[in-house]
Amino acid sequence: ENARDLQAQRDSLSQKLKEVETRNKDMEGQMRDLEQRLEKSQTEQEAFRNNLKTLLEILDGKIFELTELRDSLAKLIECS
Amino acid sequence: ENARDLQAQRDSLSQKLKEVETRNKDMEGQMRDLEQRLEKSQTEQEAFRNNLKTLLEILDGKIFELTELRDSLAKLIECS
Amino acid sequence: ENARDLQAQRDSLSQKLKEVETRNKDMEGQMRDLEQRLEKSQTEQEAFRNNLKTLLEILDGKIFELTELRDSLAKLIECS
Amino acid sequence: ENARDLQAQRDSLSQKLKEVETRNKDMEGQMRDLEQRLEKSQTEQEAFRNNLKTLLEILDGKIFELTELRDSLAKLIECS
Repeated sequence: ENARDLQAQRDSLSQKLKEVETRNKDMEGQMRDLEQRLEKSQTEQEAFRNNLKTLLEILDGKIFELTELRDSLAKLIECS
Repeated sequence: ENARDLQAQRDSLSQKLKEVETRNKDMEGQMRDLEQRLEKSQTEQEAFRNNLKTLLEILDGKIFELTELRDSLAKLIECS
Repeated sequence: ENARDLQAQRDSLSQKLKEVETRNKDMEGQMRDLEQRLEKSQTEQEAFRNNLKTLLEILDGKIFELTELRDSLAKLIECS
Repeated sequence: ENARDLQAQRDSLSQKLKEVETRNKDMEGQMRDLEQRLEKSQTEQEAFRNNLKTLLEILDGKIFELTELRDSLAKLIECS
């Protein structure tokens, strides 16, 4: 009788362990997936930021060129 | 003897289950953390995008106003 | 005979004087016309210059606003 | 006596003619001066206009380049 009890406890624990291990596997997969998504998101954001920096430099150039144009116009008006 | 074996198996399984469940808890915590980071990152990215859209609209306005300025200058030259 | 000579000289001078005075009147008219054209040209040029100065000020404003936009974009990139 | 009158008339007309011709010379000089000033003013105005046309073309280019920049920014926002 004691042996039967112990056997039942062992089988129940074994079953439970299998379930928890399966759930573990699932979570490991989900975590890898989340980590990859986060990494991809960060990589994309970094590329986006670099593209924006390039646009910012172009905008700087355009403002500089407009300022040169403005100075030429001012000189022209002054000398007329 | 058989009962002693079963008891040892049960205790070993019980120990293993505790370990796996602890690991499970850890992973659940890590996953909540990752999910929050991902969500925060997406929220920030959306806010960033909205700010950029606002800047784009301002840039549209400036280009429109420069075009009006250009047309005024063209008319002025034409009529002089 | 001497009186006839003098009379002829007087008549010729009188005729010449009339011609030169007519030419004088013409020139006075032309000069007034030229002076008016010059004055009108200078008035127009001054109005033109003032219009250009207004456009220059508008251009200054647009460059200033583009620089503000540029700074907003730079801050946004920096904080992202 | 008649001859003396005629002589006086002739001398007076001759004197008057000299005066009017001198005034004519002056006016011709003034007119040449006015014409030169008007011509110079028109030449300068034409050069000024051509310089403004060049600035207008540069402004056109800058507006075009800002529009390209705007389109790049819009595309970047759209694809993010």
